[in-house]
Formats: sequence, C-alpha cells, structure tokens
Amino acid sequence: MSKEITSRAEDYSQWYNDLVLKGGLADYSAVRGCMVIKPYGFALWENMRDQLDRMFKETGHVNAYFPLFIPKSFLSKEAAHVEGFAKECAVVTHYRLKNDPNGGGVVVDPEAKLEEELIVRPTSETIIWNTYKDWIQSYRDLPILVNQWANVVRWEMRTRLFLRTAEFLWQEGHTAHATREEAITETRKMLDVYAEFVEEYMAVPVIRGVKSESERFAGAEDTYCIEALMQDGKALQAGTSHFLGQNFAKAFDVKFLTKENKLEYVWATSWGVSTRLIGALVMAHSDDQGLILPPKIAPLQVVVVPIYKGDEQKALITEKVNGIMQALKKMGISVKYDDSDNSRPGWKFAEYEMKGVPVRIAIGARDLENNVVEIARRDTKEKTSVSMEGLPEYVKNLLDEIQQNMFNKAKAYRDSHITKVDDWAGFERLLDEKGGFLAAHWDGTAETEEAIKEKTKATIRCIPLGNEAEEGKCILTGKPSTQRVLFARAY
Amino acid sequence: MSKEITSRAEDYSQWYNDLVLKGGLADYSAVRGCMVIKPYGFALWENMRDQLDRMFKETGHVNAYFPLFIPKSFLSKEAAHVEGFAKECAVVTHYRLKNDPNGGGVVVDPEAKLEEELIVRPTSETIIWNTYKDWIQSYRDLPILVNQWANVVRWEMRTRLFLRTAEFLWQEGHTAHATREEAITETRKMLDVYAEFVEEYMAVPVIRGVKSESERFAGAEDTYCIEALMQDGKALQAGTSHFLGQNFAKAFDVKFLTKENKLEYVWATSWGVSTRLIGALVMAHSDDQGLILPPKIAPLQVVVVPIYKGDEQKALITEKVNGIMQALKKMGISVKYDDSDNSRPGWKFAEYEMKGVPVRIAIGARDLENNVVEIARRDTKEKTSVSMEGLPEYVKNLLDEIQQNMFNKAKAYRDSHITKVDDWAGFERLLDEKGGFLAAHWDGTAETEEAIKEKTKATIRCIPLGNEAEEGKCILTGKPSTQRVLFARAY
Repeated sequence: MSKEITSRAEDYSQWYNDLVLKGGLADYSAVRGCMVIKPYGFALWENMRDQLDRMFKETGHVNAYFPLFIPKSFLSKEAAHVEGFAKECAVVTHYRLKNDPNGGGVVVDPEAKLEEELIVRPTSETIIWNTYKDWIQSYRDLPILVNQWANVVRWEMRTRLFLRTAEFLWQEGHTAHATREEAITETRKMLDVYAEFVEEYMAVPVIRGVKSESERFAGAEDTYCIEALMQDGKALQAGTSHFLGQNFAKAFDVKFLTKENKLEYVWATSWGVSTRLIGALVMAHSDDQGLILPPKIAPLQVVVVPIYKGDEQKALITEKVNGIMQALKKMGISVKYDDSDNSRPGWKFAEYEMKGVPVRIAIGARDLENNVVEIARRDTKEKTSVSMEGLPEYVKNLLDEIQQNMFNKAKAYRDSHITKVDDWAGFERLLDEKGGFLAAHWDGTAETEEAIKEKTKATIRCIPLGNEAEEGKCILTGKPSTQRVLFARAY
Repeated sequence: MSKEITSRAEDYSQWYNDLVLKGGLADYSAVRGCMVIKPYGFALWENMRDQLDRMFKETGHVNAYFPLFIPKSFLSKEAAHVEGFAKECAVVTHYRLKNDPNGGGVVVDPEAKLEEELIVRPTSETIIWNTYKDWIQSYRDLPILVNQWANVVRWEMRTRLFLRTAEFLWQEGHTAHATREEAITETRKMLDVYAEFVEEYMAVPVIRGVKSESERFAGAEDTYCIEALMQDGKALQAGTSHFLGQNFAKAFDVKFLTKENKLEYVWATSWGVSTRLIGALVMAHSDDQGLILPPKIAPLQVVVVPIYKGDEQKALITEKVNGIMQALKKMGISVKYDDSDNSRPGWKFAEYEMKGVPVRIAIGARDLENNVVEIARRDTKEKTSVSMEGLPEYVKNLLDEIQQNMFNKAKAYRDSHITKVDDWAGFERLLDEKGGFLAAHWDGTAETEEAIKEKTKATIRCIPLGNEAEEGKCILTGKPSTQRVLFARAY
C-alpha cells in the first residue's frame, strides 16, 4: 500500500483525497456518493460529536429521534422547502422484493407499491413540525429544545468524501418558541455554540455572519452561518443556524394558547453541523506529510515508539514506557505504545505523521541511559530531547500549546486573506491569484449576486455580524451600497 | 391529558402502550410503522447505548459507519440472507421529485430512475463484507473488530412501539477473523457482554442459549441469543450473536493470506441489540402506576418535590434543597428539583411515578424543622423519613439497593416460570395458564418445531448453553430426544 501523498502545490484536490483515504478517515463505497467512515475517522467524529453534544446539553437541549422517512406530501407543505429539497432526494416507492420469475435474482415486487412515496430525509423540519403539532397546545409546552443526531440523504451529483456526500451524518436542532425574539435569540446562541466549538476544539477560526437571501436555507427567514477558510483560499461553510419564523408552524398548523389566551403560531429555529466539518478540519491544518489533528479532538494524542535492538533492549524500554503510559493516562491523555515488530521506527514515524497524531515520543537505549525521550510535535515538526522527570506535565502543556498554535496559524492565514477590494478587475485578479475572502460592496440584489457568481464562481459567503456601515459602490454594477460583504469561492 | 393507565390484568398489551406513550418514551409517527423516540425515551436509550459502547470498547472494538443503502444485487449474494430480508425492505427506485405538470404537487420524476434499486439496510452484512474485501489481504489485517450504531429498516406488517417497528435503532458488530475458533470465541464473548449488560444495567435476568436451525439468522451457521421473560409470561429475545462461518466471505470473495502463505476465506461474526431492549425493560419491571426504571440507566435517578404554602416557605425549602442537590450531584447522581408552581405535589408524585424515577424526595416545612425528608422508592413504593445528615450516602445506597431488588424480583419471577413438562396436554395447559419457559423434550426436527408453533404459537426460544443431557421423548411426537429445550410464546 503506497502511502505517498500528492503535494498541495501539485494538486490540492488530490492532496485532500489522499489524506482522507491514506490517513484512514474514510473510503469510497459501492453505493454511488456514499462513503464508509473508517474507524479512525469515526473516532474523530465521535470526539467532535460528544463535545458538541455536551455543549448542546449545557445550553438546555435534549436529544430525540424522528423517522428516517418523510411522506412525499409533507415536503410540499412549505413552498420554499420543496423547491430546495425535491430535486435531490432518495425516493422509496416499494416495500418488498421477490424472486424474478425469469431467474434474474431478486426484483422489485410490483404488488408492493407504496400508496404514497416516502422520501429519505434530506433534513427533518417537516416530519418534526408535523410531530410538534401534537406536542404543543399552550405556552406551557414551550420552548421545545430538541436536537437529533441522524443520517440524512441528498442526492448530490458531484460528491467528495466528507465535503459533499449523498448520505452524511449530522445533528439537526429543531426548537419551538412562543415569541419571535426568543427564537432569534436561540438562533444566535447556537451560532455562537458552533463558533466556539469550531474555534476552540477544531482550532479553525470562523467568521459569523448572515446569508444573503439567495443563499438562505429553503424555508428560513434568516440563515446565520460560520465561514472558515481553507489553505487553498476557498471558503467553507462550517455550520448554519436558521431562524424559520412561523413558516413551518403555518405549514403544519402548529398553534399555541398564549398566557393571554390567544391562539398564535409557534416560532421556530433549526441548526446543524455535519461530517463535512471533518473535511474542513483536514483542509485547514494538514500538510504534505499528512493530517495534522488538534489535540482536543484527535483520536490519539500521543504515540510512543521504541527504538531497540534485540529483545533485551526492548524489554528495558517497555518497562520504562509502561510507567510513562500510566502517568499520561492518569492525566486524561490518550496514548498508544506501538511496539509491533512488523515495521521499523522510520515507517512508524511516517505512519503517525500521516495520521496527524499531535505528539510522538521516541525512546531508545541511549535515551534510557540519559533518562530522556525525544519528543516530536506534529504541527511544527520540532524535535526536542526532554527529561523523563516531569514528562507528563511537559506533554500536557505541549498538547495545549499545539492546540493554540494550530489556531493561531490558521487565524494568521485567514486574517491575511481578507482583502478589501473596490474595483472589478482587482476583484477577479485577487480571486485567481490569492483567494480568501474579498470584502466588497454589493448593491443588495440577487441579480448582481448571481451575475458575480456566473462570472467568477464567487458567492457571498456572509454579511458579517456587527458589520460596519460604509458608503460605497457595488463592485459589479457601481450602484450605491451601505456595507461591504464577504465574497469567496467556496466548497 | 389523561394519565390513566390500563391495568395489566385488564389488558396487558394496552398497559404497555399506555406506559410507552404516557411515560413519554415514544410516540406514533405519520409514517407507517415508524416511531418518534421522545426526549425521555431517548435519554434512556443514550444511557443504554453509552454503557454498551463502553463495554464494546473495553473488549477491543471500534466504531465505524457504512452506507444506509445496499445495492439490490448485494442482498442476493448470500442465498439464505436474501430469503430472510428481501420480503420486508424499503426500496429506493428514484432520486428526484418534480412538480406535477398537472398541478398535483410534487411527483416522482420518471427520468430519475436508478439503474439498480437500493435497499435501505435491514442489516449490514452485505455492504460491510463488500467493504472488508478491500480491507483484508493478509492475516496481519485480522481480526477486524468493528461495530456500527445505526438505524435499520424492516418493513414489518404488524408493528408495536419499540418491540417491532419498521425503522429502529441498533448496533451491529461485524468482525472478521483468521480462524473458526477465534470467530466462535468472539460470538460467545459478545453474547456474554450482552447478558452482562442486560442483567447488571437493565436488571433483567436472561438465559443464554443457541437457536434451533429454523430460528437462526439468515446467513448464520449458529445464532446465540439471550432470552428474557416478561410479566405476562411471554419471552423476548433481547440480543443475538451470530457465528457466520465463511458464508459472507465466500459470497463477497474475501480471502486472506495466512502466516503459512495460503489463501483462505475469512471467518465472520455479527451481533446486535436494538431499541427493542426498551420494550423489554418496560415490560419486565413496570406496574399499573407506570414505569419502573433501574437506577443504573434511568435518565433521572432522583426527583425532589417541595411541599410548601407561600413564597417564604418555598424559599426556605429551596435553600435547603440546593445543598442536597449539590451533594447528590457530587456523587454522580442525576437529580431534578421540581419546584414549578403549575401543579400540586400530588400531581407531581403521580407524574414521576409514571416516569419511573427510582427515588422521590419530598420535603415540607415540618420536615425542615425536624431536619428530615420523606423518601419514596419507586420499586416497592415504601416511604421512609430520613435524616438530612448523611442523606447523599443514604440515597446512593438506596439506588444500589433498588437496582439489586429489581433484578432479584425479576429473577424470582423468571425462575418460577421455568417449568419442566413431559406431556402434551400439560404443555398446552401451562402455556395458556402460566406461560413462561417450558423445558420440554423435542425430537430435533424443524417439522416438529413448526407443528408445535402452529398448534400453540410457542417457539423454541433456545437450547440453553451448558444444557444437561437427558434421555426423553419428544413432547409432541414421542420420538427420542437427548435434551430439553426451552419453549415459550414470545414477542
């Protein structure tokens, strides 16, 4: 099995695929557009999921589970929603196979046709709001703060591992509120939770903003988002939080009795992040030697590799390492001792570099004598000889430092790739030559947004929260504008 | 909302539905046979899932994720497997909807027909073994010890909340081994893990056994199971672990190079438990007042209800309760203080009884004066006045005692419902009058098994592990038999 990785400079897209496949995160599957998440990739997702789940629960949310299938008619109940999701969905039409009377294996049994087709959920607003109708009668039943961890399916034509797959894993929060203000507060709160998670755990800086009308979720009044920047200068939407107004309450007739005894429609939000985040993580940090994973969510934080000749040396080293392992584990650090005889230390070094393990400890016979180990950090590749005295504390601090350094580095790159631009030629040139976010004036119309997208493939990623008012002229049409918005090419 | 529950004596089946619905575990959904798992039910599932997941990881397993869809042709590759699963599956035939040109909402777009239909996984052996083909070359790649938490769909005609639903949540372990012995060891090990979980955490005693040929998993060489007994005398299969031999390796051509450099087919196991366990939990323990949940997996272990007149009393009680809450939480006990003014203490008592919260603490003004609280345990309904000194330790011990008492009670019931029977009239009478497991001789043929099932609806639940050899005559045919097997009517 070749472990060679295409370099970013050579072919960024191939580099990404190489990392995902050879780093052991995911595999292609026999089903078009669907991936297999391999154990190492899934362990990473578990760490991300568990942390997000803690943050959801700390903010008062509970989990529940709703059906995989959505009756076709439900999709149509919200006009914008059906437009957005009908074009890329998996449709269940039958409920049985039978033996082919002509001997061709099994075939669909035409007698087992469903009266109404079922859609494999692309998102669950419709089935959930149909359920909330039964759960909500009075203001006492509100708010409902529910989240669901689930798989969803969108029949994308062009797929890429993690970034865009037909089936993906995600969480979708669906909350119900008595007032518009409360729903908007919830929408913004969850955006902040996402931003905190992506920055503090994934070490990826994000810009919080609101989407333009044409980039809004199908059925939302406002879509808030966090936008991250990848190393190739393209943006990636890392999470969205939607203020749905009363759209779904009206579509599914969900009303509640207020304290004042009036019947009113319920206010809604929904918010989600997905396994796509893993794609963002890979592209934000990794290098030409492999993955670089932030310590806070890395499946394995430390690997220890012994360097020995003969069983006697190995035994001495192993004895020492056992003590180190125990001490590290006691501090809550995940650590693996790779003493397998199947491969040489050099091969192991390359393997754990590929897998992005934050800290590697190597220990040989001479190290034993000197009571030191060699520590290599994955992010900077620096190697240091460190005394075994106080090693656990050293490693703990180093993990914190790596986490912080990864964030700082990504942030420095991101900050140096937000460019104000006021002329069209410059706009096009910057997109091609530098990439990143271009802060430019826009006349506020969907037509101009679409025209810019057609010409350059750049879209409005967001109007940043707390954006400064500034008089200016639209980068394309020259019409008056009151603020800059962020354009970028995006995943 | 009426909270009245049908009694077990009146209508056991309705009693069960009442508990699930009114206890807040699950709801029916708009999709035939699919349920909504409500927050309280899902919190229970999370506790079960997390504990099982820890036990899987402690026994060396890792999680991964495979596609929801299975190409139709995959199902057919293992002959028994397709027979078992083709008759009850959801079939995806199209990947797009479009607006009805006749104005009838959205319809399936006939131009978006899949070349090969996809089956929503009823179980994942086929898609996983198709993947393992790429993962396994040599003995060095073995064993593979992978588990998946997932949703699966089986188009059951008659469904019941948790017990039998079209979509359900489960875990499915799929392991690959170099030898027959190792695979059998794994199969048995996971059966033991299931038995330990169900007995120690769910407080439900189980019998470990092996299925007769006709009750085997479609594609297995041997199916091991754990069987539990419900309060109505019916058995419930609580988990299965399958030794798959080389069947799937042969179907998907998965070979490995042995140490001796020979190509051999890989040996397989699969094992699973599902949200069905929640149905078993409800039926094994609960009473006519509601759920009774074992402390080790209860979403809420302790509820504190204040009894007061006026704000001043409430404030004094709340101050005291805050201290108690802190102390309980410090000991890892989940506790809720229900001081809402919306309902009276009596209503709250009934509500938490319905929800099966193991321990209820009530505290009134006079209790404050006397420095005591009233503690009611859900399992025995005993109430005790307990001093506030040492209360946390008291509660912790009480939770342990409740857990043990629930198991003992269920075990006593189960043990008194295993009956040896040697005549057909007695067999039929016992099934009707007492239920439980009937230990009877069987001639070992599928025909007799089927005939008994037709006559009595009883099936062979299992041949217990470590079963004693005993000469006898088949309960139905009188033909010679070498051991008793366990018959029961079952869920």
